[in-house]
Amino acid sequence: MLSRVVVAPSGFKESLSAQAAADAIADGVRRVLPDAEIDRVPLVDGGEGTAVALAAATGGRLVALPATGPVGDRLGTHFALLGPAGDTALVEMAAVAGLSLVPHSLRDPGATTTYGVGELIRAALDTGVRRILVGCGDSGTSDGGAGALQALGARLLDPDGFELPPGGGELLRLHRIDPAGLDPRLARTELLVACNPYNVLCGERGVARVFGPQKGATPAQVEHLSAGLENWAYVLTRDLAVTHTELRTGPGTGASGGLGAALAALGARLLPRFDVLLGHLDLDARLARADLVVTAEGALDHQTPRGKVPAEVARRAKRYGRPVLALAGTLGEGAHEVPGVDAFSGILPAPMALAEALVRAGELLTDATERALRMILLGARLPAHAEVSGTQRPSSVR
Amino acid sequence: MLSRVVVAPSGFKESLSAQAAADAIADGVRRVLPDAEIDRVPLVDGGEGTAVALAAATGGRLVALPATGPVGDRLGTHFALLGPAGDTALVEMAAVAGLSLVPHSLRDPGATTTYGVGELIRAALDTGVRRILVGCGDSGTSDGGAGALQALGARLLDPDGFELPPGGGELLRLHRIDPAGLDPRLARTELLVACNPYNVLCGERGVARVFGPQKGATPAQVEHLSAGLENWAYVLTRDLAVTHTELRTGPGTGASGGLGAALAALGARLLPRFDVLLGHLDLDARLARADLVVTAEGALDHQTPRGKVPAEVARRAKRYGRPVLALAGTLGEGAHEVPGVDAFSGILPAPMALAEALVRAGELLTDATERALRMILLGARLPAHAEVSGTQRPSSVR
Repeated sequence: MLSRVVVAPSGFKESLSAQAAADAIADGVRRVLPDAEIDRVPLVDGGEGTAVALAAATGGRLVALPATGPVGDRLGTHFALLGPAGDTALVEMAAVAGLSLVPHSLRDPGATTTYGVGELIRAALDTGVRRILVGCGDSGTSDGGAGALQALGARLLDPDGFELPPGGGELLRLHRIDPAGLDPRLARTELLVACNPYNVLCGERGVARVFGPQKGATPAQVEHLSAGLENWAYVLTRDLAVTHTELRTGPGTGASGGLGAALAALGARLLPRFDVLLGHLDLDARLARADLVVTAEGALDHQTPRGKVPAEVARRAKRYGRPVLALAGTLGEGAHEVPGVDAFSGILPAPMALAEALVRAGELLTDATERALRMILLGARLPAHAEVSGTQRPSSVR
Repeated sequence: MLSRVVVAPSGFKESLSAQAAADAIADGVRRVLPDAEIDRVPLVDGGEGTAVALAAATGGRLVALPATGPVGDRLGTHFALLGPAGDTALVEMAAVAGLSLVPHSLRDPGATTTYGVGELIRAALDTGVRRILVGCGDSGTSDGGAGALQALGARLLDPDGFELPPGGGELLRLHRIDPAGLDPRLARTELLVACNPYNVLCGERGVARVFGPQKGATPAQVEHLSAGLENWAYVLTRDLAVTHTELRTGPGTGASGGLGAALAALGARLLPRFDVLLGHLDLDARLARADLVVTAEGALDHQTPRGKVPAEVARRAKRYGRPVLALAGTLGEGAHEVPGVDAFSGILPAPMALAEALVRAGELLTDATERALRMILLGARLPAHAEVSGTQRPSSVR
């Protein structure tokens, strides 16, 4: 019975928010199943839009304030207080240091700073919360969280004893850290970082190598940033006496250009982002009641199982044996191998440039949902003796 | 039970033959239903590839010969003798006057000729067949079949009594037709034209207006050709004493740049192409045994119901209550309104230019088939109490 459909998409980067994606999919479901109950759960991954979405979903509120942007400008930003009680704050790093806040002409990951993230954390501390969640994702920085640490009171000193200027490009010159001025409230506040645990600070899969190029780094800059982050991990570990975690390659240390490492050095716990965030959306209980789960993301490919929304939705839906359909703007290598995804489809009706697809994403997603639902219904209406031949393990097909 | 799948696609223009499309789809079906019996019925529509496909499907043979091409050159071509007995010939007009035989630099529909079609018909008569089928479609000509008539012995005379040069651009100068030299064997041979009945010679939907531009005509040429075809219909009707059909707007008179009209004037019957051709493929009996029918064409849009392969397959499958899935390289306006098509999908996995899609069509079609079958299986595996809510008339959805 397809009487209850849960629609749980991610946003589509550069085109649709998660809410807009959920609305577009719901429209498509309704065309084919006009009587179905459609439960929309726009999903957040810690990146852009997370604070707004979680404030709304939990009945909390947004606190607006000015802070320092990624290129040193002052900008208007916000953090969220979750739930009616407001004793948990959510600081979305992308709201003050996200890539979309960095003008294309200034895309230099050696210069951008997370200073504003530290300012938001201080402002959250000012409200007296017991717990602060920091949402990572969509960052425009590669400073290892150095700026955030400075905003929180630490002094980063070069060999001559001068304060280090902003940006990951300076980290190779870091000589020592003086933590004496760190905000004392940090010690009595629970700090959780919602991150992708696959992102690590250093090494072959380190954040500068994996994400530097898309933040605007040249190959030479990537090497320079990598070396700087190595030094950063070394000095942080030594001067903040970090013993509880390995800052170079610990899970999530590379989150948001290395912000994860800095916060871990302050005692924060780096947790898989969905474990931190989705509890606030009651996702599991909603999946458990679904006859069909539809998820979506901009791209479905070999990266999807590495902590992306469709993989997480599929994994959770499968706990309850629910069928999962995934839609994506782009299907890449590995799209057919996402565990728990029973069926998937692209959304493009015809040859089309990326720019057009981005502009028309909502409409295309609605039409593609309609087509997919019609195929599912075709299957559902096959004669009842439908002991279907073929593989029982769709994810191993091909 | 999805144990028997009939795969009945058209070719994809400029990229896949019907056989290649059938093979690509079958590969995709097999990935999901490794044990299913897959019955491939590559469909012909009278155009390019029809002679080869029907000779193969009926156990007939091809007769190779030289003839006059659309721009007056001599080329190697063929016609088919169908079945082991070989008493029916199939002349595919595209094999000697098709658009793909006209070099891009010579795309002038005022100049191209169907002379070679007349030569093929004569060669078929030489073999002593009782019946000749002429397959229309994919033509590169707009001469109203004037060239074919000349090759068969008629004299087309201008006001000064000189023979008309080749090409639709000359038809406005046609003064009279002298039929005395027409091949006498035509009178005792059954002549059937397999055409799209929506194509008519003259008027607002006349062949010059609808197809002239894609054959390379300028707007001024379209008007000139239209006027020429009006004159052609008038003189043909008068001088060949045509009373049994209306050459200006009768169904199929516009087939292959008006070849239909000339053959009708000789007494040929213009019939819906699928009625003439598909009997040779035993299509209906094969559809009747299918658990699922998969059809495909380059484009699915508002033109599809006007005599295209997927619409014909769906119409016939529905006589037996069989579910129909349609796949297409391009989904256009009206794709969701093709009667009898229960579900449909495009084949593109990602933003892509047309040129790339054409080159990769086979692989894309296989992958898209796999995705579609997975969706159908998702539906088929829904709990058995799946009294599915929603519309029972997919073609009215949206």
